[in-house]
Amino acid sequence: MDEKVYTLSKEIDKDLINNNLSETERNAIANQLKELLPEDTIVLAQTNPVSGDLKGNAQKALKWIKWAQRIGAKAIIFPEMYLIGYPIGDFIDRFPLIVEENIEWLKALAHHVTGNTKVIIGFAEFNKEKYGKKYYNSIAVLSEGKIERVIRKTLLPNYAEFNDYRHFEPAEVNSAERITNIGHQKAGIIVCEDGWNDKDFFDKNLYKIDPVLAVVEEQNPDYLINCSSSITRAKKEQLKHNMLSFAAKKYKTPIVYVNQTGSGECMSFEGASRVYDRTGRLIAMAKSYQEQFFIVSPEKGGEINFLPNGLEKTLTEQKAFTLDHEPDLERTYLTITQSIKDYFKKTGFKRAVLGLSGGLDSTVSAVLLADALGAQNVFGISMPSKITSAESKNDARELAQNLGINFTEISIKDMYDSTRAKFDEVFANIEQNWDGRYKESFTNDNIQARSRALILWGVANEFGSCLPIATSDKSELYMGYATINGDMSGGFAPLADVSKTKLFALAKWLNKNRSTQNAIPESIIKKRPGAELAINPKTGKPLLAEEALMPYEFLDEVIWRVENLQQTIGDMMQEEFLHEKHMKEQNTPVTQEQKLQWLQKFFKRMSTSFYKWTIMPPSPIVDARSINKTEYRQPIISSRINYHKTSFEDKLKELDTNKL
Amino acid sequence: MDEKVYTLSKEIDKDLINNNLSETERNAIANQLKELLPEDTIVLAQTNPVSGDLKGNAQKALKWIKWAQRIGAKAIIFPEMYLIGYPIGDFIDRFPLIVEENIEWLKALAHHVTGNTKVIIGFAEFNKEKYGKKYYNSIAVLSEGKIERVIRKTLLPNYAEFNDYRHFEPAEVNSAERITNIGHQKAGIIVCEDGWNDKDFFDKNLYKIDPVLAVVEEQNPDYLINCSSSITRAKKEQLKHNMLSFAAKKYKTPIVYVNQTGSGECMSFEGASRVYDRTGRLIAMAKSYQEQFFIVSPEKGGEINFLPNGLEKTLTEQKAFTLDHEPDLERTYLTITQSIKDYFKKTGFKRAVLGLSGGLDSTVSAVLLADALGAQNVFGISMPSKITSAESKNDARELAQNLGINFTEISIKDMYDSTRAKFDEVFANIEQNWDGRYKESFTNDNIQARSRALILWGVANEFGSCLPIATSDKSELYMGYATINGDMSGGFAPLADVSKTKLFALAKWLNKNRSTQNAIPESIIKKRPGAELAINPKTGKPLLAEEALMPYEFLDEVIWRVENLQQTIGDMMQEEFLHEKHMKEQNTPVTQEQKLQWLQKFFKRMSTSFYKWTIMPPSPIVDARSINKTEYRQPIISSRINYHKTSFEDKLKELDTNKL
Repeated sequence: MDEKVYTLSKEIDKDLINNNLSETERNAIANQLKELLPEDTIVLAQTNPVSGDLKGNAQKALKWIKWAQRIGAKAIIFPEMYLIGYPIGDFIDRFPLIVEENIEWLKALAHHVTGNTKVIIGFAEFNKEKYGKKYYNSIAVLSEGKIERVIRKTLLPNYAEFNDYRHFEPAEVNSAERITNIGHQKAGIIVCEDGWNDKDFFDKNLYKIDPVLAVVEEQNPDYLINCSSSITRAKKEQLKHNMLSFAAKKYKTPIVYVNQTGSGECMSFEGASRVYDRTGRLIAMAKSYQEQFFIVSPEKGGEINFLPNGLEKTLTEQKAFTLDHEPDLERTYLTITQSIKDYFKKTGFKRAVLGLSGGLDSTVSAVLLADALGAQNVFGISMPSKITSAESKNDARELAQNLGINFTEISIKDMYDSTRAKFDEVFANIEQNWDGRYKESFTNDNIQARSRALILWGVANEFGSCLPIATSDKSELYMGYATINGDMSGGFAPLADVSKTKLFALAKWLNKNRSTQNAIPESIIKKRPGAELAINPKTGKPLLAEEALMPYEFLDEVIWRVENLQQTIGDMMQEEFLHEKHMKEQNTPVTQEQKLQWLQKFFKRMSTSFYKWTIMPPSPIVDARSINKTEYRQPIISSRINYHKTSFEDKLKELDTNKL
Repeated sequence: MDEKVYTLSKEIDKDLINNNLSETERNAIANQLKELLPEDTIVLAQTNPVSGDLKGNAQKALKWIKWAQRIGAKAIIFPEMYLIGYPIGDFIDRFPLIVEENIEWLKALAHHVTGNTKVIIGFAEFNKEKYGKKYYNSIAVLSEGKIERVIRKTLLPNYAEFNDYRHFEPAEVNSAERITNIGHQKAGIIVCEDGWNDKDFFDKNLYKIDPVLAVVEEQNPDYLINCSSSITRAKKEQLKHNMLSFAAKKYKTPIVYVNQTGSGECMSFEGASRVYDRTGRLIAMAKSYQEQFFIVSPEKGGEINFLPNGLEKTLTEQKAFTLDHEPDLERTYLTITQSIKDYFKKTGFKRAVLGLSGGLDSTVSAVLLADALGAQNVFGISMPSKITSAESKNDARELAQNLGINFTEISIKDMYDSTRAKFDEVFANIEQNWDGRYKESFTNDNIQARSRALILWGVANEFGSCLPIATSDKSELYMGYATINGDMSGGFAPLADVSKTKLFALAKWLNKNRSTQNAIPESIIKKRPGAELAINPKTGKPLLAEEALMPYEFLDEVIWRVENLQQTIGDMMQEEFLHEKHMKEQNTPVTQEQKLQWLQKFFKRMSTSFYKWTIMPPSPIVDARSINKTEYRQPIISSRINYHKTSFEDKLKELDTNKL
């Protein structure tokens, strides 16, 4: 397509956000475009709806539809479930009004669909059959003031954070119903997961039926449209590309893929809507992580926006744990900043307050918040206790200055002392009736963490539109190395799915790639992590996290193996870890005893951390798998699971009836 | 059956718990029983497994199996998924080892299955087909040292807290495979939800297939066995009874229903295993809320244990909101105390610490904890601030004395003062950079609630096996009238699914029905609820909750209508509330304006409370529906939902393109 199309479409994108053009200016742009556009032009409405905001979503849709009509596009295509907006959780179950209303809004939108531009848009529909779940996950084709047809989703994902099968009845494929004429072409419509079940592409298929196969073989469409709300994940970009390209080539049929952008709580959609030609070649690709009025031709394609810098590097498969996090860092950065931005915007918050300890977690959190919300909307508070080093205080202050965020420092010593005095009194009383007082406990460590959270929540109570931030990272959450009502408490947890070794890499990447370079003081990145809540009696210095836990390089590989390979202690003892390799190279090999001890410690600490996972605030999901409670749920009472395999003989011994 | 059977079976129940009999004593009991038991005797193993504790569950099963063999029972039948133990959450997905191991344990158990006693037991199985989900939810029939057959569940519930369809592939019915010979009889096996899809019983069916119909019509079994893990709910007892009785009568086939007991986090199983004869008559029923080695004959029945006092009264349908909570109070009491007991036991905790405010929530919590854990294992701490009345302090102390729980009183005044001083300093700094400081805020109220939680978590950090308790109730959680890191923080929340009016009824019921009568001081029940965190400027007295919210009688009916009738503001404006009726009777009618204002306040406050729901600790689910996050999930970002229906004309106006 002519380069000029892309320039003009950027004007449309701006107008859709800022409403900055007059009707005359709009028509001028539209007229120029009409000259340039091919006959089969369609628009991929890569939009960011707000969950439950039917009016807002409908109004936005209409603005986009009007633009598609102006430029004479044959169709404008919105993502799956656009009108209600993913995620829907369970609210359509408790409030059927929402579904009634989304149908009314759909009809009201249809009033505005005139001329030759069809509108293809996701919504929820009642199931009126005598059996089955209450709703269908559907796509409406609007044409000439009416609902021309409705296509219902057949394959309903119910894994990870997807719960489609909870609410929706799987529809029969009915391939004839899925065909609509767009201009002179016949398009076949499929809905997200409907396109994810190719028996030649996947080793194992989740479903028996393949709607793509049925539509192509029975209807022979000129091209396929996939209306999606598909999430971003580490390495998923590769899978998406391979799968869509494979299907287009296999069926010799172009595929037009429309995806949502924006974040809804823990779900992040990366956009990147696109077109593949009948040879499987990518011939158009929208931008990632932003809304775009994306003008394409199913035959000729359109602009190809390269994936953000770094993202294309994820198009290689990851088969082993690596410390080379670089290929995934820009995607990680964009996912988290979009997630912060949208969580605040969609819930009506504007500002964030967080504790700045001079450590890595709060530092990276502050950078991401500043980028997502604007530096003026972030307040960093340094809250030293008597253990806090002068270096940490300086680092926190320097970071805030570099970022241009608001900053204040306040000692928590008085709060700690008055709480500690109260504790002495309470504990003395309790000890009169209860035994089991620990000789060593985390009580003092936790007073510090909880006093800090008390201040942050106080600020949020006192100042409007402000949320406190929980800074815990993924490695530490796996280990339960985070304080309830302390550092793991807040309104949002940006780093909950970022492991520590990746966090170090991200800090370096931020220093190199942000417009303000080196905002993070070098000393913060060089420092070995520690909560600065307790003194190590052996060294007389604040206890380091790796002393309390295990080397992060090892820990992060255990996490990676659990999440990606579903490995157990036995499996992991059989394989060499990267950390083992590195230690061997340094002539300080890790013994098998040490390795087993770390692994046992991992599973034991993980087992006692399930509770913490369930009370974590919302957080973006970044890795392929996570412990985010919307994606993964492990019952707290399952802490007696034995993660060792035992032999059959041992089992028979445990079932010795003489001993039972 | 002979009364003596019931007496002897109680000895077996005791031995299964305490291991108190010698082998000789066991054989003596068995020999007596053999004389008395009918030819077709079977045992319903109403057990309480621990989620993930494969070894423990297998060892327990073996003890039960041995007893069934001793008395010469033709079969012993365990609940669905017994070996792994509900709830399974997602852990079988992340740790396939658990499923591998549960199969090995099953085989090890089979080694002990000798003679004429078959074992029917729930477990998880791998799906080895080329398509579908990873596992089957299966029942094994063990016979003569081997796995005779496996029955796979067909209907997989995926609503409320059930997530079967996430992990399990729905199996073909295959009725022939579901038949096993037990003694001279042919039994057909179905698995829980398989039995919940009768097209003549339900108005609308969730699934197309009816496995019961297939098994009965194609195989004509002598009786049906339903292996279940079925939860308790308000009014569900009635549904269960009606449905099972209906099916037995319809098919002229006795039904043997085996249910799990015990609680797994938020899921509570009430046991009450039973037998219906071919006319639909209940001819045997096990106890509720306890394990029982339940000896029955599918033809002749067995002991009928009446439902706990009060529970049988729930066998009437509830069509409208009522303040007559009495019929559901004993079930409520048993569900919550079982839930506390099992949560503590299964997670390895023994003791609870809670704040005693002299208010209703903490009072009822303390009673339930004392009954569940033993008074010596409960510590109540009165933590007055300057607002706390002398009456509240006395009430707290008196309650503790009556219950015999541990008690101490400690003023939080110093903690409050030092925090408040720190806040002044912080806020002054922040105000230099940020506008939007509230003139009125909850900051001071929250310091009190959070200082108290700080003390409770401190106790839990300092003393072994101890959990702090969150005391928030359901009505207040709907209104967000609970403090993050304050009264809604803890390791367990016993009252999170009990509304305020029901809580008053429960308090009175406890005073009447516990062995120690009137443990709750009358003044606590008479007092109108208020958090005692702030002073009402109009009255100069602590602000009452109903002044801040709305009358509880009205609020609880709104909640009931939302959960049970899925009503919206419009629906509710059309119907008369109980509170309206009462006010009319008192000649102080509620105006329509007032009603609308309360309803709008309800939905507005609810919309800003979603976050609090997601970070609530585990709690028992008691009502038919709840806001417990394992049962109901509403995205926090859905706060822009409009709970009013708008007209089509209004929608067209909102889509006026001139204004967009």
